[in-house]
Amino acid sequence: MNAEILCVGTELLLGDVVNTNAAYISRELAACGIGCYYQSVVGDNPDRLSDSLGLALSRADMVITTGGLGPTYDDLTKETVASCFGLEMELHQPSLDRMMMLFSRGGRSFTKNNEKQAYMPRGATIFENDRGTAPGLAVEKDGKTVIMLPGPPGEMTAMFALQVKPFLESRSSQVLRSRSLSIFGLGESAVEDVLHDYMVEHTNPTIATYAKTGEVQIRITASAPDAAAAEALMAPMVEEVAALFPDHVYGVDTENMQTALVSKLTEKGRTIAVAESCTGGMIAARITEVPGASAVFLCGVCSYSNQSKMDLLGVERNTLETFGAVSEETALEMARGIRQRSGATIGIATTGIAGPSGGTAEKPVGLVYVALSTAEGEKALELRLGRAYANERELIRNFACLNAMHLALRSI
Amino acid sequence: MNAEILCVGTELLLGDVVNTNAAYISRELAACGIGCYYQSVVGDNPDRLSDSLGLALSRADMVITTGGLGPTYDDLTKETVASCFGLEMELHQPSLDRMMMLFSRGGRSFTKNNEKQAYMPRGATIFENDRGTAPGLAVEKDGKTVIMLPGPPGEMTAMFALQVKPFLESRSSQVLRSRSLSIFGLGESAVEDVLHDYMVEHTNPTIATYAKTGEVQIRITASAPDAAAAEALMAPMVEEVAALFPDHVYGVDTENMQTALVSKLTEKGRTIAVAESCTGGMIAARITEVPGASAVFLCGVCSYSNQSKMDLLGVERNTLETFGAVSEETALEMARGIRQRSGATIGIATTGIAGPSGGTAEKPVGLVYVALSTAEGEKALELRLGRAYANERELIRNFACLNAMHLALRSI
Repeated sequence: MNAEILCVGTELLLGDVVNTNAAYISRELAACGIGCYYQSVVGDNPDRLSDSLGLALSRADMVITTGGLGPTYDDLTKETVASCFGLEMELHQPSLDRMMMLFSRGGRSFTKNNEKQAYMPRGATIFENDRGTAPGLAVEKDGKTVIMLPGPPGEMTAMFALQVKPFLESRSSQVLRSRSLSIFGLGESAVEDVLHDYMVEHTNPTIATYAKTGEVQIRITASAPDAAAAEALMAPMVEEVAALFPDHVYGVDTENMQTALVSKLTEKGRTIAVAESCTGGMIAARITEVPGASAVFLCGVCSYSNQSKMDLLGVERNTLETFGAVSEETALEMARGIRQRSGATIGIATTGIAGPSGGTAEKPVGLVYVALSTAEGEKALELRLGRAYANERELIRNFACLNAMHLALRSI
Repeated sequence: MNAEILCVGTELLLGDVVNTNAAYISRELAACGIGCYYQSVVGDNPDRLSDSLGLALSRADMVITTGGLGPTYDDLTKETVASCFGLEMELHQPSLDRMMMLFSRGGRSFTKNNEKQAYMPRGATIFENDRGTAPGLAVEKDGKTVIMLPGPPGEMTAMFALQVKPFLESRSSQVLRSRSLSIFGLGESAVEDVLHDYMVEHTNPTIATYAKTGEVQIRITASAPDAAAAEALMAPMVEEVAALFPDHVYGVDTENMQTALVSKLTEKGRTIAVAESCTGGMIAARITEVPGASAVFLCGVCSYSNQSKMDLLGVERNTLETFGAVSEETALEMARGIRQRSGATIGIATTGIAGPSGGTAEKPVGLVYVALSTAEGEKALELRLGRAYANERELIRNFACLNAMHLALRSI
């Protein structure tokens, strides 16, 4: 089976919105083992939409559309598909009832044009929208399927995960399940090098690698008659692959480093505090982005000036004068200072030169020290993160963040 | 003239990469007054690439491609376009020389397959790549133009801005220039409401609005025989439109709020320090993302625990016990505390309930206080930012950040 993605919306053609929907659906289709050879974007124009839909249906078994399901006159996706498949539009009463309930609960008046969202091609499968008003739907005829999803990414992704995926699975004798390993400190090519034989030899589960900024994700995907069987196929391989990267796997089925860190701290009853110079608050911001972080994160200090390193963290003037603000010694005193002053079990710190200016021959842009302090011991790492790219400052700060969080994670 | 965008790359079809290139090019085309009715994505497959190119050329005067210009065997864009236009490929010596120089300067060995990047269809206009190795190019024949750009967004956008835009202008008797006004504190529909008559009446310059998270951008675009004439057309309208939103325009031709804040602080010789609770370091992280922030940003404290609010900021225990951590009183003491302890001229603070848990009937999720303290006076705002969306925590933190930075900006 192969599918094609058709995103509808003039806002995409004007570049006002980045098409994250196409990437999400593509990734989900790949995870389901459904091939996708084309993505297209067309505006809210009936003729061009109709042409694009016809072309997509001529090339693929299934077309997944996003957008054009709303209440206004230029929302035309359902009507165009119905006309292409020769289907009548009819009122879907449960959708209308649900929508009126949503409006009345939100204290908004229900204007007549909203009714349009409850009219569906006859025989369609309806996907309820639990994040907005426009339902999604699927229409099947003559071996072709069109799945229509709302445009707002939050609505679309929730609908896909909870309703479209089971719909796709119900039309297949197999289900697909995935697990992921998060790797830090190795590049994608190094990971692939280690995994090469596995990737070639194994077809179920399959193994694939994905590069993220500063990290690599290994995804293991199994196909089986039911979820339990898929999980059973994956479990030994997750163990085996994790064992190949003992120093680098930091999480299994984890969203990102901060989520792994908060859950490990919670599990072990530890607390953390951070002292940041070059990362300027990014570590604190990432940790506190995780719901429930308040139970383990005590405080952060972003000490950009030397004065604040002394006042807020107790770094010695002598250390700053002898070794400089960007030094292993300063990083260690910052980590120790924030740990002792906050009463946290773990203190981490960063200091470095993020650029674009401020570098010297001896201490170039990209030189960063990250440090860890616990009651059991202390540790600092020297990093050379300079890259001659346009977004160098952003990259240096990001890598410094990841390295500091990883240092904390490995210590727990 | 109308154009079509064709992005080439299997990584896009697998969803590993979000297609920001299409959005960028679409927006630039719209700003140049060039219509765009379709965007397509196709993989690194010669037949499908050739079909897609043929279709695009049948529908548009100009096709802009991204990707497929690299050194490997599956990079096929130039070869496919050359074959479609019946053009020979030939070595472009300056591109080869430049590439060899880049490799030798980076200490990398030049492998033979890299030469492929210097072969071009005969007669092509070459766009030098100052961020990577693969040059871009344009080919023109029989009234049709194909512009081929590299896939990595940093390389593509730099090449577009510096070389493709002038190329497009050189084929037109007019140049287009844009200016932008950044608005905070009004929704897009409210901005459009005020601007409606302007937007309808004026065709040169044109006015358009763009919604960003928590902000609105007004873009004024003029077409004229040269840049000076375009600037002259825009200048009075920038003044007039800015005057319509005296309390809400925070910047003209400014990238974002943190950039506006750092440049205003620098210009006025002021310094800032921040105390964050619910935003957890985000304000500090955003301010320090701006190069040169170290001259005006002294320090930040992310005081998640009550203990750290007292220890690091000097908030009174009595205030926390009487009014609670999420209160106007606490926010003001935090702002005053960070200002006095850091010696900065401006102190700002946030405290609130970002959710998903921690809300009560009296203090619901989304209740946030932002505060400002200067030697001249103090001010606090109560915000109700709760939205029943899946990413509510992220939205609340983001709006709290913007409100606090805006409070500081308005005080300078």
